[in-house]
Amino acid sequence: MKLPDIPISKLISFVEEDSPFGDITSESVIDPKTCSAVISARQDLILAGALECVQLTEWYGLSVDKVCQDGTPHGTGDEILIMSGSIHTILLLERTLLNILGRMSGIATQTRTFQERVTAINPGCRIAATRKTAPGLRLMDKKAAMIGGADPHRFSLSDAVLIKDNHRVLVKVDEAVRRAKRAGVYHRIEAEADTIEEAVMIAEAGADILLLDNMPPDQVLKTVTLLSEKGLRELVIIEVSGGITGDNLDAYASLPIDRISLGMLTHSVTNADLSLDIMK
Amino acid sequence: MKLPDIPISKLISFVEEDSPFGDITSESVIDPKTCSAVISARQDLILAGALECVQLTEWYGLSVDKVCQDGTPHGTGDEILIMSGSIHTILLLERTLLNILGRMSGIATQTRTFQERVTAINPGCRIAATRKTAPGLRLMDKKAAMIGGADPHRFSLSDAVLIKDNHRVLVKVDEAVRRAKRAGVYHRIEAEADTIEEAVMIAEAGADILLLDNMPPDQVLKTVTLLSEKGLRELVIIEVSGGITGDNLDAYASLPIDRISLGMLTHSVTNADLSLDIMK
Amino acid sequence: MKLPDIPISKLISFVEEDSPFGDITSESVIDPKTCSAVISARQDLILAGALECVQLTEWYGLSVDKVCQDGTPHGTGDEILIMSGSIHTILLLERTLLNILGRMSGIATQTRTFQERVTAINPGCRIAATRKTAPGLRLMDKKAAMIGGADPHRFSLSDAVLIKDNHRVLVKVDEAVRRAKRAGVYHRIEAEADTIEEAVMIAEAGADILLLDNMPPDQVLKTVTLLSEKGLRELVIIEVSGGITGDNLDAYASLPIDRISLGMLTHSVTNADLSLDIMK
Amino acid sequence: MKLPDIPISKLISFVEEDSPFGDITSESVIDPKTCSAVISARQDLILAGALECVQLTEWYGLSVDKVCQDGTPHGTGDEILIMSGSIHTILLLERTLLNILGRMSGIATQTRTFQERVTAINPGCRIAATRKTAPGLRLMDKKAAMIGGADPHRFSLSDAVLIKDNHRVLVKVDEAVRRAKRAGVYHRIEAEADTIEEAVMIAEAGADILLLDNMPPDQVLKTVTLLSEKGLRELVIIEVSGGITGDNLDAYASLPIDRISLGMLTHSVTNADLSLDIMK
Amino acid sequence: MKLPDIPISKLISFVEEDSPFGDITSESVIDPKTCSAVISARQDLILAGALECVQLTEWYGLSVDKVCQDGTPHGTGDEILIMSGSIHTILLLERTLLNILGRMSGIATQTRTFQERVTAINPGCRIAATRKTAPGLRLMDKKAAMIGGADPHRFSLSDAVLIKDNHRVLVKVDEAVRRAKRAGVYHRIEAEADTIEEAVMIAEAGADILLLDNMPPDQVLKTVTLLSEKGLRELVIIEVSGGITGDNLDAYASLPIDRISLGMLTHSVTNADLSLDIMK
Amino acid sequence: MKLPDIPISKLISFVEEDSPFGDITSESVIDPKTCSAVISARQDLILAGALECVQLTEWYGLSVDKVCQDGTPHGTGDEILIMSGSIHTILLLERTLLNILGRMSGIATQTRTFQERVTAINPGCRIAATRKTAPGLRLMDKKAAMIGGADPHRFSLSDAVLIKDNHRVLVKVDEAVRRAKRAGVYHRIEAEADTIEEAVMIAEAGADILLLDNMPPDQVLKTVTLLSEKGLRELVIIEVSGGITGDNLDAYASLPIDRISLGMLTHSVTNADLSLDIMK
Repeated sequence: MKLPDIPISKLISFVEEDSPFGDITSESVIDPKTCSAVISARQDLILAGALECVQLTEWYGLSVDKVCQDGTPHGTGDEILIMSGSIHTILLLERTLLNILGRMSGIATQTRTFQERVTAINPGCRIAATRKTAPGLRLMDKKAAMIGGADPHRFSLSDAVLIKDNHRVLVKVDEAVRRAKRAGVYHRIEAEADTIEEAVMIAEAGADILLLDNMPPDQVLKTVTLLSEKGLRELVIIEVSGGITGDNLDAYASLPIDRISLGMLTHSVTNADLSLDIMK
Repeated sequence: MKLPDIPISKLISFVEEDSPFGDITSESVIDPKTCSAVISARQDLILAGALECVQLTEWYGLSVDKVCQDGTPHGTGDEILIMSGSIHTILLLERTLLNILGRMSGIATQTRTFQERVTAINPGCRIAATRKTAPGLRLMDKKAAMIGGADPHRFSLSDAVLIKDNHRVLVKVDEAVRRAKRAGVYHRIEAEADTIEEAVMIAEAGADILLLDNMPPDQVLKTVTLLSEKGLRELVIIEVSGGITGDNLDAYASLPIDRISLGMLTHSVTNADLSLDIMK
Repeated sequence: MKLPDIPISKLISFVEEDSPFGDITSESVIDPKTCSAVISARQDLILAGALECVQLTEWYGLSVDKVCQDGTPHGTGDEILIMSGSIHTILLLERTLLNILGRMSGIATQTRTFQERVTAINPGCRIAATRKTAPGLRLMDKKAAMIGGADPHRFSLSDAVLIKDNHRVLVKVDEAVRRAKRAGVYHRIEAEADTIEEAVMIAEAGADILLLDNMPPDQVLKTVTLLSEKGLRELVIIEVSGGITGDNLDAYASLPIDRISLGMLTHSVTNADLSLDIMK
Repeated sequence: MKLPDIPISKLISFVEEDSPFGDITSESVIDPKTCSAVISARQDLILAGALECVQLTEWYGLSVDKVCQDGTPHGTGDEILIMSGSIHTILLLERTLLNILGRMSGIATQTRTFQERVTAINPGCRIAATRKTAPGLRLMDKKAAMIGGADPHRFSLSDAVLIKDNHRVLVKVDEAVRRAKRAGVYHRIEAEADTIEEAVMIAEAGADILLLDNMPPDQVLKTVTLLSEKGLRELVIIEVSGGITGDNLDAYASLPIDRISLGMLTHSVTNADLSLDIMK
Repeated sequence: MKLPDIPISKLISFVEEDSPFGDITSESVIDPKTCSAVISARQDLILAGALECVQLTEWYGLSVDKVCQDGTPHGTGDEILIMSGSIHTILLLERTLLNILGRMSGIATQTRTFQERVTAINPGCRIAATRKTAPGLRLMDKKAAMIGGADPHRFSLSDAVLIKDNHRVLVKVDEAVRRAKRAGVYHRIEAEADTIEEAVMIAEAGADILLLDNMPPDQVLKTVTLLSEKGLRELVIIEVSGGITGDNLDAYASLPIDRISLGMLTHSVTNADLSLDIMK
Repeated sequence: MKLPDIPISKLISFVEEDSPFGDITSESVIDPKTCSAVISARQDLILAGALECVQLTEWYGLSVDKVCQDGTPHGTGDEILIMSGSIHTILLLERTLLNILGRMSGIATQTRTFQERVTAINPGCRIAATRKTAPGLRLMDKKAAMIGGADPHRFSLSDAVLIKDNHRVLVKVDEAVRRAKRAGVYHRIEAEADTIEEAVMIAEAGADILLLDNMPPDQVLKTVTLLSEKGLRELVIIEVSGGITGDNLDAYASLPIDRISLGMLTHSVTNADLSLDIMK
């Protein structure tokens, strides 16, 4: 699988944010020279963001002498990327590269761990990301989750219909599904249910995906069982969401469902620990 | 204290990222009408990002009927912001507003907790943020940390000199400090020491701030004691950093130092939990 | 149905394109004063772009005294929009407003005509737009087609899977459908068939939408009949495309299909004729 | 003659518009590999936009193995451009390249046809474009018309004075010409006349160009004859405009005039038909 | 005469350049409150930039209580603009406002002085600006010169033809004029002559404007006299340029010419002196 | 010392400003060909902007065959930069390159002259630039001043605290210094004094830098003497500012101070004279 590229203009903006008027330390302290630097892992991680680092280092005139592939596992001390060129350029980019790698690998690592736990229990079930990403980093966060093995879910408000609580306050959920179906056929229609009754209404109204939100595992099971009895189970993809974390993930994974979406994959990230060192 | 504003163009870009071609759900499902919506806390938190939400909602033509002040503490169920206007606009903004509030309040809440722990032990000591922010969110992350009570530290490579390991590989640290002092006087000069010897060299060379990086608390104490004996303690601000988290924070706070900087404040954020609900 | 807004920054860029260094005619020829101006139709048309004109005129400080609603039909001489304010601002905006209204109403008018012809023959069948839009005007062109009554189809490469000839050169179409289904569940999957055999393969592989491309009407009919016999018809939405224009539209409309997509709706637009006149 | 380049940032924006979150089809369906693709004509056309396609394909890392020159005529099946490189990049660019080529060649083809008809009748007379271009595509549309042989006319409100009906409502046309002449000498001054009397006034006031708008051919002839009698014909360039299409073009071309401007060249474009095919 | 507006996005970018991470002085030192501030002249000047200051202050939420008009003369102590609102906003804008006013008024003041000297000697002769403006400030610098009374000359490479030395190295100047005339009629054609012979060639080839570059006044006089004798004088506008400053301006002004262009008007600006003071 | 790079996107914007619709002269007059061009000095100057010219010429596909180094002195006729490639590209860039070099070298030349005068009198004293730069050119103007030998002073409102008259109207200056010290430690604190008393208060309050504004030299001397007597002189860096020009520079340079800041270095620039010539 190929993954989407992040526009270079976006990546450049991260460097410019970190140096509106240059790097006053390196400029005053270091003599111009050419050297090499290595980015290394300082923990176990699933690598993500390496391609973005290659894009940035090459844009700024450095050459990349070695780079590991996004999606591969690494441990403390592993060399992830070796670059060479102007020492001032390397130091200009240092923090931006580490911030990109740290966040993306942090997301990918957590996601991979969760996906593997789920797969071990329920091979057909996939972790999914949400739109709870850092503002401005939607594609970067989603891509990292995809590297970790997650289904990216919808990218924005424009690419799938998802009828949630705030819509249901204003329109009955089955009517909402029908309206969405009338509006167009080129985007998926998903709707959220809080109760078994709503779940049945949604499936009967012809939604593609049924989201069981904030339901405890036993309720989910009851709902899926009822849908099966009514011959509706095969007509909808079933996603669960709402407060799912590492603590209750296995309980959900053991249910006969298709997707488990977790906001925490992207809204509560622990950056992976990496460092950049000049190779004297 | 007034805090820096985030340019409205940046905030708008977050909304546009979430809807490159509109909100296909609300557009097809909901009839145009005017209504109100409330953003509420779903956990204890220190509020941050409320001003940004006001800027965005007003830019998009909504009116703000109530809003709590950034920096104030709130608990589950507290109403943070009430807006009114076009239902389609409210739903267009929903996720962006929550993502901004969630991240900023998450940072502010964690920072406030840490700062209070430190203040209880060492009233003169301040938590400080780092440049380990989400790419593109430097000002937003720093502002959230400031709301939480932290010193923002330098904002970018352009506003203070910080001589770190990668510089010291190439230039002796005291020579680096002297070069920086020759280059200009309008920016602070900080230098990092790994050993007591280096700490002394840095203080003697006339740096403004001494950063003791990755030193265990007892080493820090030894270093500060020696500096005091040599009459150098009063000449430098002392910052510690490197792997400091909630686990070892108190140990560092009890040392005779000025700043404790923690990358985790901004690189490993747990979003605060808030929700937006349409008021029928 | 609500329709997506075009960002004001995009609309402003159209004005700035037309006046990099001001409007040297009005600046030198006309004395500053306040006046009114009216935009009128000079042909029968379905109005589109009026909302964008309101956004622009208000942004530039004019007031809108009257405006007709997008989607409504108008004839020669009908007053579409009346604005008032600085004569220099009105003249600065004149051509941009007319270019927006002309293109969008041109698209909407043609689309409405075609949709009505189709509806008269086959009420369940919808016209659909394509990505063959003017570069940079994707949302504007799609919105105009929606105002005309079309299904907008996918907005970009990011919001639905569409397996076309160039993919099928490299992967068998049923395998391609299966790969797409494995990749994620939140986006529709459509695949193009040139032959009856491929059509069956696509339906059996579980695509959501079957695109019969460049098939003459009798072939389409044969294909749909076979799919019905195999019990596959109800499982897929059927779209036809390829060289469909006003000449052969009715022939396709009379087939048991769901969507007829026409590139010409947006790639070969005849602007609607409107004028702006100063009201002395 | 060299023609103006379109900034690469503008061209890139067209690709990004088509893939805010990547190309989810190719990413999931096609294995990474290197291949070639050919863009071919599917109708007779005058090529325009080839240089822009070269700029884009090279920016995205593809190599261009063959490309025909803008301005040259081609027929069905002619190979216009052959590129090679990453299959994912080729498919990412496909629609944008075709949309650029389609629109620009569509404009160039229509323009060339009209210019040749005019030249056959009146070798000194030139077709001219207008500012009735697609919003945001001013330079692209003008360039395509220039490739077709047209005089581009003014590019924007900033580069020539054109006194039209809405100015004349507020200032008498000869006074307007005199004001414009006083304002500066570095830009042409053109003024529009509806009647013979105005035409004489304009020429006498010293305008550079006289625009006879919406005048039937016989009125134009009368006007030019009178100007000749008064010794004014040689002092002004004469342009006609207003509802000129293929139907009445020859009638205007046979008049003793200098320019015929047609809005339809750019506001009512039929895209040229081209396709991109992967060469297996 | 109305003058072109500078886009607000450009003006905002000046403020953002001055505060990438806020105004750390005012934020830490001043308590939030509302107050007024006055911008005053500290020298004799022709005001320019006042409109831009109004745009900026209002954009940032301040109100303008008084403002003098661009183009009016002022002396030391004169109050130019009074604003009121948030003290933090006033201080955020202070330097940007003064930098805009200082540069624009500096240009306008110098230009007005020169224009008045020329007018006193030769009422039909106008000072003209050049493209020797500060990078990025073309429109602002040209506008300031227009406020001072100058003809702005061409704004960019796109709005008039000017055949200069580097063109003449490659094409004979009369052939160059003829080529330009064939290319289009909607833009002025100017050509530069170093010698009397070239001047005659240019006039005979039909250029609109003849630029006598780096010619001493007596040579200019000889050239104009010869053109008059040949009946060519009335066919061309005559501009002189090249090293003209306050020292030799009068000598040129007394010649029978139309325009005197001076690079120094915009490339060597002495800012006007103004100050902003908080009104306690 | 390395100096900060100006982002290429900024430099490109300067070229695009000068050619919104291309270079209509060269396009119509010159046949496409490859050639060389040389930029030469036409006066004595300190070169600045050469690196920016290399960035731009290479971005636009030209090659740089020779270039002198920023910071080096040159005289009339010296060849600064030789480029080769498309004649149309060279002519497109000509004016932008000269405007960049002219302004930056103008600043650098004046600065170097002043710094050398100061150094001859007081080797420990440095000239400093201010924020009185051309709007949008902050980094470019500061960089040119640095090339000339100046201390750049703070780059923006975000990188140092400077308590000036407008702050002091609202808060007593010693209280202001204390507030700034409480707010953070990572940025310098400077405060302005008009009187000896204030100077003492500022030094005692612990500011890093004392700015003596608009004080005549004898008052400055008295102030420094008093500070020395009180043992405060070594605790603060002393800067003088306010109306300092070439006329009174030496008088200030002979005082026991550290920095002399001059707004005129960047707000009242005389461009250096350079030319670009095609090498036939």
